[in-house]
Amino acid sequence: MNIAHDKQVLAVSGGVGGAKLALGLAQVLSAEQLTIVSNTADDFEHLGFSISPDLDTVMYTLAGLNNKELGWGLAGETWSCMESLAHFSDQTWFRLGDKDLATHIYRSAELQKGVSLSRVTEQLCQSLAISHRLLPMTDDRVRTMVQTDQGALAFQHYFVREQCRPVVSGFYFDGIEQAAPQSDVVALLESSSLASIIICPSNPFVSVDPLLKLAGVAAKMAANKAPVIAISPIVGGSAIKGPAAKMFAELGLACTCEGVADFYGELLDGMVIDTVDAAFQPAIEAKGIPCLVTNTVMKSLQDRAELAEQTLAFAEKLSQGATSSRAKIAVDEEVGS
Amino acid sequence: MNIAHDKQVLAVSGGVGGAKLALGLAQVLSAEQLTIVSNTADDFEHLGFSISPDLDTVMYTLAGLNNKELGWGLAGETWSCMESLAHFSDQTWFRLGDKDLATHIYRSAELQKGVSLSRVTEQLCQSLAISHRLLPMTDDRVRTMVQTDQGALAFQHYFVREQCRPVVSGFYFDGIEQAAPQSDVVALLESSSLASIIICPSNPFVSVDPLLKLAGVAAKMAANKAPVIAISPIVGGSAIKGPAAKMFAELGLACTCEGVADFYGELLDGMVIDTVDAAFQPAIEAKGIPCLVTNTVMKSLQDRAELAEQTLAFAEKLSQGATSSRAKIAVDEEVGS
Repeated sequence: MNIAHDKQVLAVSGGVGGAKLALGLAQVLSAEQLTIVSNTADDFEHLGFSISPDLDTVMYTLAGLNNKELGWGLAGETWSCMESLAHFSDQTWFRLGDKDLATHIYRSAELQKGVSLSRVTEQLCQSLAISHRLLPMTDDRVRTMVQTDQGALAFQHYFVREQCRPVVSGFYFDGIEQAAPQSDVVALLESSSLASIIICPSNPFVSVDPLLKLAGVAAKMAANKAPVIAISPIVGGSAIKGPAAKMFAELGLACTCEGVADFYGELLDGMVIDTVDAAFQPAIEAKGIPCLVTNTVMKSLQDRAELAEQTLAFAEKLSQGATSSRAKIAVDEEVGS
Repeated sequence: MNIAHDKQVLAVSGGVGGAKLALGLAQVLSAEQLTIVSNTADDFEHLGFSISPDLDTVMYTLAGLNNKELGWGLAGETWSCMESLAHFSDQTWFRLGDKDLATHIYRSAELQKGVSLSRVTEQLCQSLAISHRLLPMTDDRVRTMVQTDQGALAFQHYFVREQCRPVVSGFYFDGIEQAAPQSDVVALLESSSLASIIICPSNPFVSVDPLLKLAGVAAKMAANKAPVIAISPIVGGSAIKGPAAKMFAELGLACTCEGVADFYGELLDGMVIDTVDAAFQPAIEAKGIPCLVTNTVMKSLQDRAELAEQTLAFAEKLSQGATSSRAKIAVDEEVGS
């Protein structure tokens, strides 16, 4: 890939949509060049397990083990445990497959021993022969609460148990103020070797915003020379997957890629929008956010790699364009200091 | 069955061997007439779960769901979770089937909520349509430690992980002095409605002795008019199942039904020994323990019911024989008081 071998890319991902592009990036970047940071604010405690749905979706996707029919969990999954559990318990609305359970058993037992989520994730990735680095956004407890017409709901209760039916009026992230961003993520955000920050096509409200709201993260992203580029998860007014479009509508926001641009605002140095949304390019660029218009709907493995390639090339172009002005600022600062 | 409808039987059981006779008793006694108390000293915490192997073996056996090939766990079991877990963890020596996991998940989550083991067991039994009462010997934590030539081992580490290979020199029951016997068991031991106490053919050292060593239990058994009858788990010098014979030998005790009689000693009012061990009858009876000699190897469901019937009839006979002398003692005491 056309980034210098000593440069690194940070990809920000939620679940399914983000994981697709994360896999594309993993196809075109070496293990040393790519770090994926995953949302953990939709983690929850259930049936005694510590469950990290987004981390697992990215992990299983990178390992090539993800269940493509379901869009979550493991391929070739079986359900014996859940079927038996249904005899005892009404807590089977969050379906845990027999194979997937191994991940939850292992993670929960390690966390219980005091091992950090970062370290457990590293161990799981090693076991699954994942070479690229996958990090949780924090080792601390942050929990997305969805404010709805049925009261505040823990994210998985809103998302899985209630099937996203309640009308959303807002979000808050319990624990966000006490949580520290993962230390390797911080180091990367402070590093001059960062070539780009790619916000994968994940839900802005619940998959990306928790990371951005962790102490110092948005400021460090803005301060780093590496361009921040978001791929719109809204294509033609709909979300490819999940409740993002419904949330935009219920919050009274424009359910378009321009709405996504407005959500991220000044954080963005560039945006990737789908060809079906080409008409939004002038409006977004008028906000000072250059756009790459391309196919963003990743159906095949090839689509993932192509979108990754194009996004990285776009980032490179933005970096070069920015070099003169940023270099000038750097020179000015040096002169001034 | 030939016990009065207002009389009750208490069966003491460990795992497989005990569960067979417990099932036989459940075939011939009504739900109101039979209480089974199960050993919990081989319970352990593993992979974050609270596991009660003996309770589960009895429960699955009573429900007709036990795995007859393995001798433990559930029939028709699958192993997807364990196979996946082996990628991450070396803690797969205690094999948890996918269906069986549901029991451990449910029990562990309930215990974590503060529900007692008695109550969780009741809930599990209800869900499995078990009508007879199954109780843990205690709701408190008691753990069998096996003293061996490799040091003290937690029971499941000795039994499953080390496959009973270490040479045994003794046992102790961690927590036994602080633990209270289960309250319904105590009530039954203090009740005049108890017709008999049947010590099922379980391992005397590790399946039965923990209950007997709980505060007041042995004394209450001795004080109750109901005869205490043990079925020898040693038949022809071997144990049908498990390490009992190996333990007798390593402890320097006679690995015979007479050795079992000596172990229980004065607690017993009667003993059931196998026809192959008929030669031991005189020696055991010389100790003041009447013997019933019959087939004790339960291969079929019919065998289980027949041994149950015969044991109950033997108990009835012992009760009638004891009535005159015991009644006399009661009269003497009344006169004396």
